[in-house]
Amino acid sequence: MRGVTEQTLTRPLTSLPPADLETFLETQRMAYEDLKARGLKLDLTRGKPSVEQLDLSNELLSLPRGHKDGSGTDVRNYGGLEGLPELRAIFADLLWVEPAQVVAGGNASLTMMHDCLVQLLLHGGPDSPRPWSQEESVKFVCPVPGYDRHFTMLASYGIEMLTVPMHDDGPDVAAVRELVRDPAVKGMWIVPTYANPSGSVVTQEIASALASMDTAAPDFRIFWDNAYAFHHLTEDEAKSADIITLASAAGHPNRPLMFASTSKITFAGAGVAFLAASEANVKWYLSHQKFASIGPDKVNQLRHVQFFGSAAGVREHMARHREILAPKFAAVDAALSSALDGREVATWSKPSGGYFVNLDVLDGTATRVVELAREAGIVLTPAGASFPHGVDPRDRNIRLAPSFPTLDEVETAMAGVATCVLLAAAEKLAAGSGAGSAATDPDTDRDGVQG
Amino acid sequence: MRGVTEQTLTRPLTSLPPADLETFLETQRMAYEDLKARGLKLDLTRGKPSVEQLDLSNELLSLPRGHKDGSGTDVRNYGGLEGLPELRAIFADLLWVEPAQVVAGGNASLTMMHDCLVQLLLHGGPDSPRPWSQEESVKFVCPVPGYDRHFTMLASYGIEMLTVPMHDDGPDVAAVRELVRDPAVKGMWIVPTYANPSGSVVTQEIASALASMDTAAPDFRIFWDNAYAFHHLTEDEAKSADIITLASAAGHPNRPLMFASTSKITFAGAGVAFLAASEANVKWYLSHQKFASIGPDKVNQLRHVQFFGSAAGVREHMARHREILAPKFAAVDAALSSALDGREVATWSKPSGGYFVNLDVLDGTATRVVELAREAGIVLTPAGASFPHGVDPRDRNIRLAPSFPTLDEVETAMAGVATCVLLAAAEKLAAGSGAGSAATDPDTDRDGVQG
Repeated sequence: MRGVTEQTLTRPLTSLPPADLETFLETQRMAYEDLKARGLKLDLTRGKPSVEQLDLSNELLSLPRGHKDGSGTDVRNYGGLEGLPELRAIFADLLWVEPAQVVAGGNASLTMMHDCLVQLLLHGGPDSPRPWSQEESVKFVCPVPGYDRHFTMLASYGIEMLTVPMHDDGPDVAAVRELVRDPAVKGMWIVPTYANPSGSVVTQEIASALASMDTAAPDFRIFWDNAYAFHHLTEDEAKSADIITLASAAGHPNRPLMFASTSKITFAGAGVAFLAASEANVKWYLSHQKFASIGPDKVNQLRHVQFFGSAAGVREHMARHREILAPKFAAVDAALSSALDGREVATWSKPSGGYFVNLDVLDGTATRVVELAREAGIVLTPAGASFPHGVDPRDRNIRLAPSFPTLDEVETAMAGVATCVLLAAAEKLAAGSGAGSAATDPDTDRDGVQG
Repeated sequence: MRGVTEQTLTRPLTSLPPADLETFLETQRMAYEDLKARGLKLDLTRGKPSVEQLDLSNELLSLPRGHKDGSGTDVRNYGGLEGLPELRAIFADLLWVEPAQVVAGGNASLTMMHDCLVQLLLHGGPDSPRPWSQEESVKFVCPVPGYDRHFTMLASYGIEMLTVPMHDDGPDVAAVRELVRDPAVKGMWIVPTYANPSGSVVTQEIASALASMDTAAPDFRIFWDNAYAFHHLTEDEAKSADIITLASAAGHPNRPLMFASTSKITFAGAGVAFLAASEANVKWYLSHQKFASIGPDKVNQLRHVQFFGSAAGVREHMARHREILAPKFAAVDAALSSALDGREVATWSKPSGGYFVNLDVLDGTATRVVELAREAGIVLTPAGASFPHGVDPRDRNIRLAPSFPTLDEVETAMAGVATCVLLAAAEKLAAGSGAGSAATDPDTDRDGVQG
């Protein structure tokens, strides 16, 4: 290890004297060249289920048996806008609502969220004074880090995004309360259970505060994207806060619109999505959907009814996903710990569910880490992706998605990422101390707009 | 036949002397009471495929074999917004466009039409000066009679509908040309092949005129709903006019948006829908869809690829539908001819494709006919359904949908409908001549808005 002392190997990088830092930087450059020489081709960009996970649901490929549901409806024909009763009943049970409060739709909850947003823009909700598109401006509260597709959808309609911190127990309620005093603030987006990417779980207390807070907009909406409601990584299963009951009890029954899907339960691209909400919201949703739809794919819904059998069947199925996913998340933690413990240049989440590890590196180095990784054949989600307009003001946040690669690949990729984290940090610190090559200043090379 | 002369039995109703008309009316009342006494329960409301037709595609229930497409893509996972290449190629062949001009979507072309309309409203098209929702008003040309779901979708967004007659060879081009001089007229809807409900086929000449006409709006759109492109009832197969090539040649490549689906080819509720258009329009469509979708259900698309095999496979499959449908359409014609020939109180189409028979009864009696039929257990589409806001200014148009009932049921129902047509006509004429009971005046009992 050419001149690196035992102490240099374990001390925080920020505490190294310039000469040691220079040596450390050189060592990391060598390690990085070794990494590049391996010619890796690994992709950790998105929360995609792995082949092994998809295989768990292969029975769907030869279902359904027959073509009628329990009430005798021929699922092959038109109709049934609200979805098959039996499937709605299973997910009503899982989501703690009445079947009349659930719509079973097509293959993407993202599409149902988009449908709701579009109808709010073009028609307004049951309690809107006018369509949102007729307001002077529309703003949304966005806890960060958050899900990039929520932000890009809002941006595509010119909706202004106001960020608040996402803590371990949910969004920063004081910050939210302050923002919703503006009547232009019409909604907020939350992934309440094992949030993307932080892994946070919104507590019953935080949910209650959000459900009951005063908002200047009478038609304020919480887009409650419960994408990972059943996606536990440990036996200590988080319970989603019951936002619909809380909001109803607080006198704001139409505030929450809950979304869920089987995309990360059965087939990512061929599952069934769900909307759960007050009966008034369900009626509102269907009253507009009827102009756009001839009913959802009921054959696929019947497949899912037969495959799951019951709510318990869904839970049992999720245990099999856990067996596949938990070792990958453990591998991420092990690789990062092994390389980064004691260096004080990164922190990361240890989620008990969901699909992501949230990695925060040394401020101003996330873009560089992603770039280094890409050049070494490890593709990560772009730095900043978890922030509105893709701009992380501290350029430190990286979303890791270990579900799709094999366990071996996760181990290899994460060791490589750790090398990139250390190299980028050493570059940055060496530049700051006058040593090494210049690091990019994250505050001057961005032209995005911040929420 | 109590006092009815041989002559009364065959002469036009309008030419009967009052006494004979009164007798005729009494006879029809008796016939109608007999009809009611049969306690029928028949539904001819919508163009739904029959169980026998759906059975033709039951192989889909146990497809796909495997879970990869020809290029090795795992169809179970996320992605592929534009749809599976092999399925796009089959329908590009059928719709005479390049695969790059086709998007394979979800289970409903209605949804794709709605997506296009919403994006035109909220963003505008590739050649729009601004989003349509920012125009003072938006108007559409609507050939009538037409498809009720087109009209209700437009109405739901407050789009004004301007009607033009639908002739045997397509929309009245002179009338269309006059209307599109108004820059607020942003589009028109056409079912070009075996139109709903008239059965008309738009000729190459009419299509060419529509493709090349001057329009004040630079972003004028033809929603070319080719729902029945392959749905022939005879061996004399109509060829759809090639609107995309015509529009491109005329210098208006983005004018047409073509839609098609397998809803009336495989399973009505679980088929695959298609958009075909200029590459600029396809790019535009996908540029907005990417915010709303994680990709279509590619498993269902692979099912369809394996089921059809090729474009020829689709055509062969349609021949089997024809064998089931043609006798039903023949039964409609036979029943109406047998009861109504010579009476001069009704005309009807003899379509060579599609799903509907267009029945025009004596002016001012369509509502009454539908009411009489319903009371006798035969449910028809509401009178006026084929007109904007459900208002037929002459109250004469009834859309008959004989696909779903069995052949026996079609025969029974149509004989019953003929009885209702004669009774309503006799009531109306007797009221006009001072005899019989008062018929409803169709011009005073409506409160809808006319386009």
